[in-house]
Amino acid sequence: MVQPEITAGLLVIGDEILSGRTRDVNIQTTAQFCTDLGIELKEVRVVADDTDAIIAAVDALRTRYTYVFTTGGIGPTHDDITADAIAKAFGVDLPIHPEARAMLEARWAETGAEATPARLRMARIPQGGELIVNAVSAAPGFRIGNVHVMAGVPKIMAAMLETIAPTLEGGRKVDSRTVSAGIGEGAIGDPLAEIQSRYPDVKIGSYPRMGNTRIMTYLVLRSHEADPLDRATAEVQGLVDRLHAEKNIVLPKEPYA
Amino acid sequence: MVQPEITAGLLVIGDEILSGRTRDVNIQTTAQFCTDLGIELKEVRVVADDTDAIIAAVDALRTRYTYVFTTGGIGPTHDDITADAIAKAFGVDLPIHPEARAMLEARWAETGAEATPARLRMARIPQGGELIVNAVSAAPGFRIGNVHVMAGVPKIMAAMLETIAPTLEGGRKVDSRTVSAGIGEGAIGDPLAEIQSRYPDVKIGSYPRMGNTRIMTYLVLRSHEADPLDRATAEVQGLVDRLHAEKNIVLPKEPYA
Repeated sequence: MVQPEITAGLLVIGDEILSGRTRDVNIQTTAQFCTDLGIELKEVRVVADDTDAIIAAVDALRTRYTYVFTTGGIGPTHDDITADAIAKAFGVDLPIHPEARAMLEARWAETGAEATPARLRMARIPQGGELIVNAVSAAPGFRIGNVHVMAGVPKIMAAMLETIAPTLEGGRKVDSRTVSAGIGEGAIGDPLAEIQSRYPDVKIGSYPRMGNTRIMTYLVLRSHEADPLDRATAEVQGLVDRLHAEKNIVLPKEPYA
Repeated sequence: MVQPEITAGLLVIGDEILSGRTRDVNIQTTAQFCTDLGIELKEVRVVADDTDAIIAAVDALRTRYTYVFTTGGIGPTHDDITADAIAKAFGVDLPIHPEARAMLEARWAETGAEATPARLRMARIPQGGELIVNAVSAAPGFRIGNVHVMAGVPKIMAAMLETIAPTLEGGRKVDSRTVSAGIGEGAIGDPLAEIQSRYPDVKIGSYPRMGNTRIMTYLVLRSHEADPLDRATAEVQGLVDRLHAEKNIVLPKEPYA
């Protein structure tokens, strides 16, 4: 039996990404996390700290994909409204979670911080949600339904992904091979399309990069199946070797993997 | 009369972003571009090189926002299907555009490249589309309706944004001020929420960062109106100064703007 496809959508929440003030790094972290687990990340959305926008995006993603991951908006300040929006999306209350409160209070006891209303916002968890504890911050994320709500600070987001990894069902792993070509995409497009047409189980992507000294094209082959992947990779490598020989191109050894 | 709000949606197209292989940089570039022009970037979506996914996202964004920008998938290889998808979304043909072809042929004449079918893919422009010429690459992007279709290679994307800037209607510019606090969000959340409640025309965001030596919180105030922005900023700075004094915190001078 073929394993079912396991899919995910990622929702990045934060005005600071949309204003350009902050460069997002959680998209790539989550994308690599999914790839490692055999989960296919199908879509990412970035929305503002706006309740209606968050609800609309969460509802769209959670009905479409196996898992939804969100990052951002679970801190103690007034602009952190993700928990409120998720509770609304699921139609549940947002009470203080005793365990979350206890974890936060233990940390506050260490640091001498007071249990202010702002700090207690971080203990509010939608009814029925399960905590996502992490090693970096005492403030937990939470899972409700198929939606995993996590922090925006990259170190905390990464720690929360580590926490949830064992709870996720992985799909078939996708293997990939990269062939580096010291030529532009235009020179390789037609024979590459011909190879692609003969390997329906292999997805061949072509990624140009303008280096300082020459145009490079990275040809990335991806498949669930090792055999066609190896055969298609050998054909692409042969094509690139022929083109390099024709054009007297010798690529330096590079650490690119 | 109050100027209307000018909004935008950004669509990033590419398997390489969703697999985690490539870290996107075009989101921040486009976000800063919009902020500079007074255009409010409301939403970003990232989808795979998949015709249906591209069409669905473009249709959702183009009906909702003043402008749509897309990046990725307009190169010469078989996996570059953005032009095909946009033509389908608009229900128009995708013929070879004579001017685009001429521009490409002029470049190929310089470099000695042949006009292969793969290369000619880059001259296909949806019927009615206008070219977006750029200084870096001979392959143009195009505008059709309110959708601006641009390249994924960051240098080319940036050059294309420069090309379209004069054609876009800017909205009211948003000014911003940043106050740096050497304390966590929890210590400042309540009085900050109180200030926010008195300044409805100013949006106050709070962005924690875990530095190597201390937790920092950057408080970013944004508004269309200079007067409430200045007054709210003075209040936030006063609050931070008081908290720093209470806790004997002296921040080093930092270049952060």
